[in-house]
Amino acid sequence: MKVVIFGGGGFIGQRLARELLTEESLDQGKLTRLTLVDIAFPRDNFNDSRIEYIEADFSERAVIEKILKSNPTLIFHLAAVVSGEAEKNFDLGMKINFQASLQMLELCRSLKVHPRIVFASSCAVFGGDVSKVILDETGPKPQSSYGTQKAMVELLMNDYSRRGFVDARSLRLPTIAIRPGKPNTATSSFVSSIIREPLNGKKATFPVPLDTEVWIHSPKSVVQNFIHAANIDSSDLGTDRIINLPGLNTSIKEMISSLEQLTNPEVVSLITQKPDKFLESIVLTWPPRFDTKRARELGFKTDSSAEEIIGLYIEEEGIT
Amino acid sequence: MKVVIFGGGGFIGQRLARELLTEESLDQGKLTRLTLVDIAFPRDNFNDSRIEYIEADFSERAVIEKILKSNPTLIFHLAAVVSGEAEKNFDLGMKINFQASLQMLELCRSLKVHPRIVFASSCAVFGGDVSKVILDETGPKPQSSYGTQKAMVELLMNDYSRRGFVDARSLRLPTIAIRPGKPNTATSSFVSSIIREPLNGKKATFPVPLDTEVWIHSPKSVVQNFIHAANIDSSDLGTDRIINLPGLNTSIKEMISSLEQLTNPEVVSLITQKPDKFLESIVLTWPPRFDTKRARELGFKTDSSAEEIIGLYIEEEGIT
Repeated sequence: MKVVIFGGGGFIGQRLARELLTEESLDQGKLTRLTLVDIAFPRDNFNDSRIEYIEADFSERAVIEKILKSNPTLIFHLAAVVSGEAEKNFDLGMKINFQASLQMLELCRSLKVHPRIVFASSCAVFGGDVSKVILDETGPKPQSSYGTQKAMVELLMNDYSRRGFVDARSLRLPTIAIRPGKPNTATSSFVSSIIREPLNGKKATFPVPLDTEVWIHSPKSVVQNFIHAANIDSSDLGTDRIINLPGLNTSIKEMISSLEQLTNPEVVSLITQKPDKFLESIVLTWPPRFDTKRARELGFKTDSSAEEIIGLYIEEEGIT
Repeated sequence: MKVVIFGGGGFIGQRLARELLTEESLDQGKLTRLTLVDIAFPRDNFNDSRIEYIEADFSERAVIEKILKSNPTLIFHLAAVVSGEAEKNFDLGMKINFQASLQMLELCRSLKVHPRIVFASSCAVFGGDVSKVILDETGPKPQSSYGTQKAMVELLMNDYSRRGFVDARSLRLPTIAIRPGKPNTATSSFVSSIIREPLNGKKATFPVPLDTEVWIHSPKSVVQNFIHAANIDSSDLGTDRIINLPGLNTSIKEMISSLEQLTNPEVVSLITQKPDKFLESIVLTWPPRFDTKRARELGFKTDSSAEEIIGLYIEEEGIT
């Protein structure tokens, strides 16, 4: 069967592609074609004839239409302008995060293809009083345009599924950590940087108070959970296709002390606090505590500790 | 100051216009111009030089742009395709309820006018388990395209307000009862019909079980609450501009017995049950119980009983 990853050039998209190519993990059928769509790709390191790269903007109607006409069974929709960028460039965020997603859904409807869609939403749909525990029934209160756009697309995914145009499920992703590579313009970028950069012998800063709590999820768990979401029967979801993923509640302080336990005081001495009003204004509105009852009942995976997540990163990156 | 009512030809729009013209009820200033925009109007019965009628579709960009260029201080946005119609005609609902609202907000942004906007959202954004009490923090789970479109616009209203493009507040309206006139294609139309039609000596039916609970609000209260919403300082609202209006929980059974108490058994003998699967599939997902703490604290008005609401209708319509 044909599978598409919109945003297939990004870090999670690439890891997801690798997993799909190496494991027969999809219940819907055998993978025969994996189409990755993104504005840029890392060099091809898959060496797999099933892979197809399409370099395009997610908002390019003709490209998306052609892909949908090939009738993919499954679509992972990870294409997005990240939170910081969507806040600074309102038009770009609305265009890619919202309008292009609506366009993709409308094309599914008009072409009468009915793909299963796994949509990468975000816990940034929540905001405000961070002392409260977010329940499955808690409503989105985004404090960013990124969160607003994601929440709107979740509503569309639900309605287009209810009407039978597509068969979607929206996963609200915690902050993904630890991301390899370089810092990006996501407002949560520092959560990875404070671990990754010191491990590379580089300095790193965090823009919020040391005891700030965060809600994180490892790259390994999120990829497993994307595949798990693709394998859930529609009948087990009903009309509500939105799922708060089971992240891990930890704090900047706990992450740093876990890093120290896994390495040494010299490494953590590279980490300092550097307040940033813009980042604070967004990050400090993200609630770090969730009760993800529905996700647990549906069998989604979680991480057990900050130490485990950091240890996993050290292992995956081959850091000695 | 200039005030605009999008949807000013409808029942609530007309009552709101009358109230604004007869009472100096707006805190922002003295009303000098009241522009009513709708696809059709009842005959002019205002006889007031401050009134301007614009017969246009809410999606007509040039018309809306011209109105916004006149820099209105306050906009009441009541323009909508009703629930039943939006469910049957998906494209029309998306066009008027969602895209035209987004277009209006985008025009406010590009023209750099910053009107206060009171947006008529709906309790139809909720759906699903009707046994639960809806709290201020409960998330929308629309079971209709109408509810989906309203919930999306609420998110836009919040984000455009947070960014300073407009100063909006979204009121989630309960079912408005008792509406005069004729039944319409709103899925809640029967809630008014079962009272109005028998009082006119006509038969009426309800499509749901007799003990079905509903969440209703009188036309008088909703108009008062629209004006109250327009008078609330932004600082008292913060970033969350969405308010569940304080409706009244009652049941079809209680409404009918209240009508009987106010009239006689002959009148209620005109009411019969006539099951309708389409209406049931939407109406029975609307939760009838709310705890509207925030609205109460903000000073919004409520109705005290079904009997009061029906008595008010009888009085207003001059039924003897």
